[in-house]
Amino acid sequence: MRLIIAHERTDPARSDYLPALQRELLAVISKYVNVTNEEIKVHLERQENIEVLEVKIEIPQS
Amino acid sequence: MRLIIAHERTDPARSDYLPALQRELLAVISKYVNVTNEEIKVHLERQENIEVLEVKIEIPQS
Repeated sequence: MRLIIAHERTDPARSDYLPALQRELLAVISKYVNVTNEEIKVHLERQENIEVLEVKIEIPQS
Repeated sequence: MRLIIAHERTDPARSDYLPALQRELLAVISKYVNVTNEEIKVHLERQENIEVLEVKIEIPQS
């Protein structure tokens, strides 16, 4: 499974919520898909005011 | 903000959890970003056993 979040940081003064959002989204996903931390790879990229968070989740073949 | 979830349906017998997952992910996002339903566009695409869910959230310029 791959989860990608791309958003434009319109207001730099506003706190960076992406890390917290990422933790909560992973908590929701782990309710549906049985994964361990080792199977989750997170990549955050910043280009000017665009932030792209990519989360790769290796789902064991059931 | 754009949210994309791509996953491989390995076991068709397993119930389709993407709609429920989508609702919960949006609930999490709306805790961080003030959006109304009108500002959320959802697109679900199925190609063979790959499902790609794309959620576009128009964030009002604060």
